[in-house]
Amino acid sequence: MIARRGVRGLRVEELAAEAGVSTALIYYHFKDRTGVLRQTLEFINDRAERYTTDRDPDDPPLTPREELEETLLLELQDTVEVRENSSAWGELRASAVFDEVLREDLARATLVWVQEVAALLGQVQPMVPASALAAAAERLTALLEGLSMRWLSGGIKIGHARELMRGAIDAELSGLGQG
Amino acid sequence: MIARRGVRGLRVEELAAEAGVSTALIYYHFKDRTGVLRQTLEFINDRAERYTTDRDPDDPPLTPREELEETLLLELQDTVEVRENSSAWGELRASAVFDEVLREDLARATLVWVQEVAALLGQVQPMVPASALAAAAERLTALLEGLSMRWLSGGIKIGHARELMRGAIDAELSGLGQG
Repeated sequence: MIARRGVRGLRVEELAAEAGVSTALIYYHFKDRTGVLRQTLEFINDRAERYTTDRDPDDPPLTPREELEETLLLELQDTVEVRENSSAWGELRASAVFDEVLREDLARATLVWVQEVAALLGQVQPMVPASALAAAAERLTALLEGLSMRWLSGGIKIGHARELMRGAIDAELSGLGQG
Repeated sequence: MIARRGVRGLRVEELAAEAGVSTALIYYHFKDRTGVLRQTLEFINDRAERYTTDRDPDDPPLTPREELEETLLLELQDTVEVRENSSAWGELRASAVFDEVLREDLARATLVWVQEVAALLGQVQPMVPASALAAAAERLTALLEGLSMRWLSGGIKIGHARELMRGAIDAELSGLGQG
């Protein structure tokens, strides 16, 4: 529902109706509206973790470079799952500008994501210092958020977003290689 | 008001109260809620144009590289004006995910911004084809949006956002130089 209508349009009564349960049960499970948002964040993070890392064990192993590209580009796919995830993530991020309640959870989730991408960058460029890897990972993930919002708001096509993301990976790796 | 409370919290009645006029006058001027949003977009674009290009005519002229950096980094300042502008821009972008009404205006404003940055990149790297300049400009502006949202939502400090932006300009220019 958050992915479809946004955080600000979310009413616990409608959530209960959609789930076919009482509002009391929603409050019992989630405690309050913040609890719902927090669980949403956890849900989309678990799901993203799954669709960006699940691979068929029979497939040939990826090179570090391929793994980096795949991890980032799997967040830019026109599927129901990714569209929902990205819309909800963007909404939680945008609502945190006005509402401090989710800021810490968002910062923690972002940090985990940045560290994951930094580790992949480090596998491609093992001689680069950790601080440079972290900065490049922060940029790549922030760019991905920016491109996702442009895609979801109809500004660019998904294929073009992916092409721009690939270009950014090239530019960052060439920057790290020279550092 | 949009920068303070978001697009979704906007009521024409409150807007009228804040301005100290009747709702009839608001409707007369803006026609409807969409008219208010459209004028907001125009207002923040005009203001950004001003604070990113206004320079003292007695200052020494900037090199193309300095002009590029300044144009982008002036959007990452902890001033009331930039904070308001970026919050409102982020809100219009985020609400366009759920509401199609502003998509065209946003796409047009984004294109103008991308072209401006592409032209500055072209002054730094005159031999690079236009398509590569445009792609780099799309990435730099989308990254700026992503970093702004992280800053406004309390995820990173403004100084760090600026440092990351500078790093991206370096990476993109080194990428274009090799192309």
